[in-house]
Amino acid sequence: MNADDVRQARAYLLRVAEPPAAALVAFVAEHGPVAAAGRVRRGDCPPDVLKVTEARRGFDLVAQDFARAAEAGARLVVPEDDEWPAWPLLALDLAARRGVAEAVPPLALWVSGEVSLGAAADRAVAVVGARAATEYGEHHAAEFAYGLGVRGVPVFSGAAYGIDGAAHRGALAASGVTVAVLGCAVDAGYPAGHVALLKRMVGAGGAVVSEYPPGTPPARHRFLVRNRLIAALTEGTLVVEAGRRSGARNTASTAGALGKVVMALPGPVSSGMSAGCHDLIRDARATLVSTVDEVLETVGHFGIAEDTTRRPKRRTDRLGPEALRTFEALAVRTDRSDSEIAAESGLPLRRVRALLPELELDGFAVRGEAGWRRRKESA
Amino acid sequence: MNADDVRQARAYLLRVAEPPAAALVAFVAEHGPVAAAGRVRRGDCPPDVLKVTEARRGFDLVAQDFARAAEAGARLVVPEDDEWPAWPLLALDLAARRGVAEAVPPLALWVSGEVSLGAAADRAVAVVGARAATEYGEHHAAEFAYGLGVRGVPVFSGAAYGIDGAAHRGALAASGVTVAVLGCAVDAGYPAGHVALLKRMVGAGGAVVSEYPPGTPPARHRFLVRNRLIAALTEGTLVVEAGRRSGARNTASTAGALGKVVMALPGPVSSGMSAGCHDLIRDARATLVSTVDEVLETVGHFGIAEDTTRRPKRRTDRLGPEALRTFEALAVRTDRSDSEIAAESGLPLRRVRALLPELELDGFAVRGEAGWRRRKESA
Repeated sequence: MNADDVRQARAYLLRVAEPPAAALVAFVAEHGPVAAAGRVRRGDCPPDVLKVTEARRGFDLVAQDFARAAEAGARLVVPEDDEWPAWPLLALDLAARRGVAEAVPPLALWVSGEVSLGAAADRAVAVVGARAATEYGEHHAAEFAYGLGVRGVPVFSGAAYGIDGAAHRGALAASGVTVAVLGCAVDAGYPAGHVALLKRMVGAGGAVVSEYPPGTPPARHRFLVRNRLIAALTEGTLVVEAGRRSGARNTASTAGALGKVVMALPGPVSSGMSAGCHDLIRDARATLVSTVDEVLETVGHFGIAEDTTRRPKRRTDRLGPEALRTFEALAVRTDRSDSEIAAESGLPLRRVRALLPELELDGFAVRGEAGWRRRKESA
Repeated sequence: MNADDVRQARAYLLRVAEPPAAALVAFVAEHGPVAAAGRVRRGDCPPDVLKVTEARRGFDLVAQDFARAAEAGARLVVPEDDEWPAWPLLALDLAARRGVAEAVPPLALWVSGEVSLGAAADRAVAVVGARAATEYGEHHAAEFAYGLGVRGVPVFSGAAYGIDGAAHRGALAASGVTVAVLGCAVDAGYPAGHVALLKRMVGAGGAVVSEYPPGTPPARHRFLVRNRLIAALTEGTLVVEAGRRSGARNTASTAGALGKVVMALPGPVSSGMSAGCHDLIRDARATLVSTVDEVLETVGHFGIAEDTTRRPKRRTDRLGPEALRTFEALAVRTDRSDSEIAAESGLPLRRVRALLPELELDGFAVRGEAGWRRRKESA
């Protein structure tokens, strides 16, 4: 299977149905992108797929999409790429199996920015909130994003006015990685007042991401569909300010449905913009956080809940994400079996079996009678 | 047993050991107040009781205590009185059995104010917080207490400057019942700036309560000991503002240990005076509340989470507290046995057995094959 064919097929598939197209995604998973695209093009597909692709299947805008994307400095990242954020997006597959309707993985993502999308989405935190934010909200959105940036935690948001913009700016001020996930194409120039901000983010090692083909204008329903990607691409979502009906609450509830961490910032009880946050906390749908360290503690970040500028280098810093995950799944005092470690780490059993001997060679793990344990000096 | 003898004995016992004197309370429970007082006076008691009473057992200040109390308009309320708040204070006994060290019931309480202490403590809410409160905290303490007062919910607090004072004033403004529980005698004139406020509370149908004999000056440890009474005499405690080491957190943790509802008001994350509240909420030791209705919902008040001024009279309004409790313990669709109802209501079995036929006569309960159920038209 030619990599270019795959990319072309996925670009076609992204355009042929409005996301999230669960039936189409399932069809692609079954047949592979190239065969699926061919069959959709010919109308040779099950009725539910036909129904959602009927209107656009005749359009062949793939070449044009790539040309427009290149003009905007964007590329198409596909699940077959190494940089695909497979681990965070796995939450969508798992939630879909649990019957969460909106949990449909993207078929591919248009990305502006040189950063690897997988690296940007590694242990990232979403900072979201209302457009009609107060000074209090914007101030703290910027402060929290700054604090995350300083600690090397990528900050995702939606590029909207209000909390989103303040979060991106705060992360930029810390020279942190910050990523905007849009409800329109990466070249849509929306919101107009944030075009320069988005350019600055891309230039500073961040990214602008969208599953919508070049030229797609913003739309209300697209913001809601986009919210699932902000939730899925991060470990946790912090709602800074939200009215009782804010879209940020939608991101929060999606994050919760995906099994991600949901956090909310409290504020004055007299502020309608904190009312949504207070509801989330009161109903135990979000954990209250009042400092950046609490954010890191809540998402369960390993060893970064401190000021990294003063932190001595850890030996585990050089482990890849899967190796680190495997290492973290080891107990210090008791042996664990391969399958226990797989369950604990969330990694496939065969991957765990490959990684454990590597961890042993590197001095992180010891083989015991009943399985594996952490090597003490490594902690 | 003469009622005066009991009152005299308990006045003596209150003075003979510094509360909370667990060994003495147990001794009194075993032998009754009159016999226990006699034996303590003679030094004829177990070593642990002797130890805590040795220093003061020779003092006979009972007549003087009653004279000073009368001068201050106070009376001694004892467990043998009908107005004794036995139900709320039961939490202390239950917690003591679970091993909560500070959960020692008071031997009696000095009370200024004509209100029945039992009535004042019926479904009351404590509103507490830091002395060094902010304008935000004082404003909301007063607002919440006002809202509770309007809805007929008694407000308890500790008469300190800051949040406590604001809470008492707010309840007064609503012509609500408000009760101060002191860490000194009711006649100690403390805090000096609140003497007029305390007098106003007593005059307006509220009360000032203390387990310390007349003349006892305030002391740091007495405030902590007093906090258990604020927690015990109410259904729930709302912490309005608290620094990370505030005494209000002590009241909150005691309330939690007693199985009472703990609530906290959120505030700006930049405010050190909200930090204690945020910690309580974050650690799930308190429920976030941002409105008075949420307070009532959280303490589980039956039918008063609305504006009582617009509420039509309920038939159950005329039930006494124990009858109401028994009624609430009935299910609508299934029969419950006497002992199930006793367990559910927290009332003694013999009391439940006496009340059920009364509820039947009044049309609130029906006798079924397997026990009792609620009569439908009564809901």
